[in-house]
Amino acid sequence: MNETIETLLNHRSIRQFKDQPLSDEQIRTIVKSAQQASTSSYYQAYSIIGVTDAHIKQELSNVSGQFYVRENAHLMVFCADFHRAQLQSDEELKEKMSENLQNTEHFIVATVDAALAAQNAAIAAESMGLGICYLGSLRNDIAKVSELLGLPDYVIPLFGMAFGHPDHEPEKKPRLPLDAVYFENQYADDTAIEEQIDQFDEHLNNYYQSRSENSRTDTFTGQIHRKLSKPKREDVTDFVRSKGMNRS
Amino acid sequence: MNETIETLLNHRSIRQFKDQPLSDEQIRTIVKSAQQASTSSYYQAYSIIGVTDAHIKQELSNVSGQFYVRENAHLMVFCADFHRAQLQSDEELKEKMSENLQNTEHFIVATVDAALAAQNAAIAAESMGLGICYLGSLRNDIAKVSELLGLPDYVIPLFGMAFGHPDHEPEKKPRLPLDAVYFENQYADDTAIEEQIDQFDEHLNNYYQSRSENSRTDTFTGQIHRKLSKPKREDVTDFVRSKGMNRS
Repeated sequence: MNETIETLLNHRSIRQFKDQPLSDEQIRTIVKSAQQASTSSYYQAYSIIGVTDAHIKQELSNVSGQFYVRENAHLMVFCADFHRAQLQSDEELKEKMSENLQNTEHFIVATVDAALAAQNAAIAAESMGLGICYLGSLRNDIAKVSELLGLPDYVIPLFGMAFGHPDHEPEKKPRLPLDAVYFENQYADDTAIEEQIDQFDEHLNNYYQSRSENSRTDTFTGQIHRKLSKPKREDVTDFVRSKGMNRS
Repeated sequence: MNETIETLLNHRSIRQFKDQPLSDEQIRTIVKSAQQASTSSYYQAYSIIGVTDAHIKQELSNVSGQFYVRENAHLMVFCADFHRAQLQSDEELKEKMSENLQNTEHFIVATVDAALAAQNAAIAAESMGLGICYLGSLRNDIAKVSELLGLPDYVIPLFGMAFGHPDHEPEKKPRLPLDAVYFENQYADDTAIEEQIDQFDEHLNNYYQSRSENSRTDTFTGQIHRKLSKPKREDVTDFVRSKGMNRS
């Protein structure tokens, strides 16, 4: 196993960081690594906002309800972004592009571009011994995040990422059995998947009971069902549409 | 610079592969690496279909119009997937979850989960000396791809990935200047971004004129405007809705 694969397999989310900043060089390396990820049609349809302003960090932390949005060595917000495409175009072209950018195809393109860049950022950071945590919690109030960062139309703040020197060592969280997520040629039938999930429910329950922090009784199926049975972030749909994307 | 960052910064898409298969061990390592990526709310809301059947590969290649969808050492299709969540639930719970899964929030969750897993797969493969190419072209006929792979509701085939031993050495494609994609605290104003893009247009034109394969005159702005002024994959919106996602 090479070093890179060790880094990938060793991932765990880090939520407590030492009081030690990232160097400018580290931040540049992280962003450069993010930029080199694949990008659909060469659009590079994403932007990254590095947040260093204490007031903005506090406000973002309030949106998320998570202290580590504020208490970290660096914070980035990853955005799907087709705003750059609108620049240096006349009114006629702008109108045509706006029309085309409305469909779900372009929302997928920009969301995937941002996510690939983010995952490269995560891997780059982890390879340097830093820890990271994705912050989907910023979508708790997506309009507020957009306003705080001054995001124009065609820019959607998808999630944040907290970076820093790890100050705890959480256990590695188990994943579904490979055969529950990887299929050959055809999607597996429900019975086969259910068998895999049953196994995993038992395995995960053992993990939860035995872990040193937050020990509890729980299963994968139980969690997923609990979470999805409640409405969540119902304003995201309209927010994205208000920015000119994913409307038709 | 460590090995992992070298791998990240050295990325280029590979479209010609040697006639040399991947071992089962390599495929497992790639999938295991994909699985260890971060996942929103622990949903693991994605699936990967490994395609080995010659007929399905040919059909997918027809959809994409790209020979390397067929001619590679291995092919995977990455799907946003909330189907697993529907299993082992009674009618009442199923209905509640279906209602909640319709919003754009859950479409973002599953799309990002799939993309993070895919990028880990790409990095794992590249760290082993393999080459990869993302295949957004499968969305040329997303309904056909779904049918070929037998995908149930709540499963969206987002893109493919071709893997293999590189049989060409394309130049590394330039990226936008860092200051055109990374901003501090606030989104940059248009003039500042336009200056960066002007520079990049010139730089990219030089790259296109000097490169050994497919030399031409072109700019970033020119390409982006050309591509976005034409309607593209307008059926993706309705397809995604027909699968129960991103509707309201």
